Amino acid sequence: MSLDPAAAAALGTVRIVGTGLLGTSIGLALTSLGTRVVLADPSPTSLSLAASLGAGEPDPGNGTARITVVAAPPDVTAQVVAAELAAGPSTTVTDVASVKGQVLRSVTDTGADLTRYVGGHPMAGRERSGPMAARGDLFLGRPWVICPGEKSDPTRVADVRLLAQALGASPVTMPAVDHDAAVALVSHVPQIASSLVAARLQHAADDVLALAGQGVRDVTRVAASDPVLWAQILTGNARPVVDVLHGVRGDLDAVIEALAVLVDDDTDAGGPADPGGPAGRRVLGASLVEVAGLIHRGTVGRERIPGKHGGGPDRFAVLTVVIPDEPGQLAALFADIGTAGVNVEELTLEHAPGRAVGLLEVSVVPGAADTLTKTLASHGWKIVG
Amino acid sequence: MSLDPAAAAALGTVRIVGTGLLGTSIGLALTSLGTRVVLADPSPTSLSLAASLGAGEPDPGNGTARITVVAAPPDVTAQVVAAELAAGPSTTVTDVASVKGQVLRSVTDTGADLTRYVGGHPMAGRERSGPMAARGDLFLGRPWVICPGEKSDPTRVADVRLLAQALGASPVTMPAVDHDAAVALVSHVPQIASSLVAARLQHAADDVLALAGQGVRDVTRVAASDPVLWAQILTGNARPVVDVLHGVRGDLDAVIEALAVLVDDDTDAGGPADPGGPAGRRVLGASLVEVAGLIHRGTVGRERIPGKHGGGPDRFAVLTVVIPDEPGQLAALFADIGTAGVNVEELTLEHAPGRAVGLLEVSVVPGAADTLTKTLASHGWKIVG
Repeated sequence: MSLDPAAAAALGTVRIVGTGLLGTSIGLALTSLGTRVVLADPSPTSLSLAASLGAGEPDPGNGTARITVVAAPPDVTAQVVAAELAAGPSTTVTDVASVKGQVLRSVTDTGADLTRYVGGHPMAGRERSGPMAARGDLFLGRPWVICPGEKSDPTRVADVRLLAQALGASPVTMPAVDHDAAVALVSHVPQIASSLVAARLQHAADDVLALAGQGVRDVTRVAASDPVLWAQILTGNARPVVDVLHGVRGDLDAVIEALAVLVDDDTDAGGPADPGGPAGRRVLGASLVEVAGLIHRGTVGRERIPGKHGGGPDRFAVLTVVIPDEPGQLAALFADIGTAGVNVEELTLEHAPGRAVGLLEVSVVPGAADTLTKTLASHGWKIVG
Repeated sequence: MSLDPAAAAALGTVRIVGTGLLGTSIGLALTSLGTRVVLADPSPTSLSLAASLGAGEPDPGNGTARITVVAAPPDVTAQVVAAELAAGPSTTVTDVASVKGQVLRSVTDTGADLTRYVGGHPMAGRERSGPMAARGDLFLGRPWVICPGEKSDPTRVADVRLLAQALGASPVTMPAVDHDAAVALVSHVPQIASSLVAARLQHAADDVLALAGQGVRDVTRVAASDPVLWAQILTGNARPVVDVLHGVRGDLDAVIEALAVLVDDDTDAGGPADPGGPAGRRVLGASLVEVAGLIHRGTVGRERIPGKHGGGPDRFAVLTVVIPDEPGQLAALFADIGTAGVNVEELTLEHAPGRAVGLLEVSVVPGAADTLTKTLASHGWKIVG
């Protein structure tokens, strides 16, 4: 997986409208491949920055672009797409907004030439934004979803596919409605769930937060995201997100009900008259079934996420190695892993708040775990799991 | 942070009841420090395994233990604690269950000698269980919450603190009710949220799951947990968990309402009469404020989780490095990081499903980011962020 000079050579001139993170990153990659890139942005500062970084030249306005990439904020994407379709009577127009149905509906409402518009969504966001965070390698190996409308001309779809290939991404074609339902499930609702948990921590005492382990850190990592951008995304994909959230709320209500009936028992303010007797045991049994059922369905759902090589997430053996918190320890460890001839599939360095040690989880194929454990132990590494 | 031989030497004989992951790990650590450990378990196989692994000797039953550690499953912990208090008239009894109020109430109900019982919770779970997964280093640097009851004798509390110190853990003392509220917030509700999201993935199509990125992987990682164990934990801590879940449901309902009103607009089945006009814009504005408000509160809550050295999670600069998927690449990378003299604070190796490349996120203190970026680039590494 790398940038594709052959695909880039076939692109012709590319016009990029919007020189934030994504637009500038696309420009940097294409320029490095020798493709001519012309840039436009309502902010002269952002435009000048992107051009100075090497993402292309400010568009002289002679209308020679074969492909126009609209990389504007989601809430203005549709109007910019429509304006570009009107201004360049032969250019293919695509966009990079993370919700596709709303853009297509809005562009359709303008009466624009839909044969030349093909929506796209490179799934390569970052926690940072703006041209200074841009990288030409941003799209390497990432899915780039292409959502042709009913009226999109196949040659225009091929143009956008070529663009994704040039940037080293993996093009995936699906209707906008399917894309929007998919990202609601695998991106938008996880974001909301992460924020819901993190919002509960806002007023927690310091000694409570000191007990936070890796679990809550993982669950809330994506909660550190831009509120304005996410408000645009979630309101722009309201219907699919609400559909998934209704399912979440149904499960949540069932868990709350299963646990609340036990609370009533404790206070004698309700629930069965005989909590220690047969009736009480039946209530507890029903609660256990409900709660274990949710956790079980979660394990099944989690197992379905494809791993690095397309397998489930549990196909690797995990070793946890103690890492002294000083320079050079990771280098020494990976040198020792190298002597075992073992490939590392996944890695996570775990926090130990305030402590002079880290715990590194190393995932390897199961057949390699014994060899690696013995090799590392013989080099003096502490393996704690 | 390491095992503490001086603390271990002061312990006297330790009796461990329950030779699963935690009991066997405690035995391995203490035995390695020269402390005499006697073991008991209702399963002769588990007992024999733990003894053979070096966790101690099967208890000859002469009642000489100064400290008894009950490491039984949560749903039988209280009755085992009560039995141990009755059987050993001078021993200090502690336990390792992850919910503390319920155990204390149940032990109190038995009329046992509460002066000698001090609850504990080493926060060192693993995804695997049983004696074969045990490690003597399991508790290094982890919080070990100690929850004295109102009647606990201070010398008994000191015994349990000594035990935690011997095992290299960080003892933290708080009332059981505070502990249970804390773990509801930082462990139990995050687990439920993770399972709620993962359960939605159960019936998703493969092409939808192929779009899963690092965000949903992080949010759902802890969803791969034991349903029966978690049903015991959550029903055992029902009241604090329900309290936090009510807050979550309130926020969730507000988001659903804010998004649903926009869906009604789309279908013309409700909502304001004039979606594109001033009334419609007011509705959209209110929805944006509601959704952005939740995401914002999440960023604030997330920011409050202490980092590796006690700071916020955003105090590090993050470099994303492209790692070819072949043995030796990580060793080469960390050797090059070593030449920069930079200490790595956090690490995550990101999946690229089915691709011959990985993306490694390396977190360093902000002052070291420039040096590291230049050093790695000069060694030919691709840095994509």
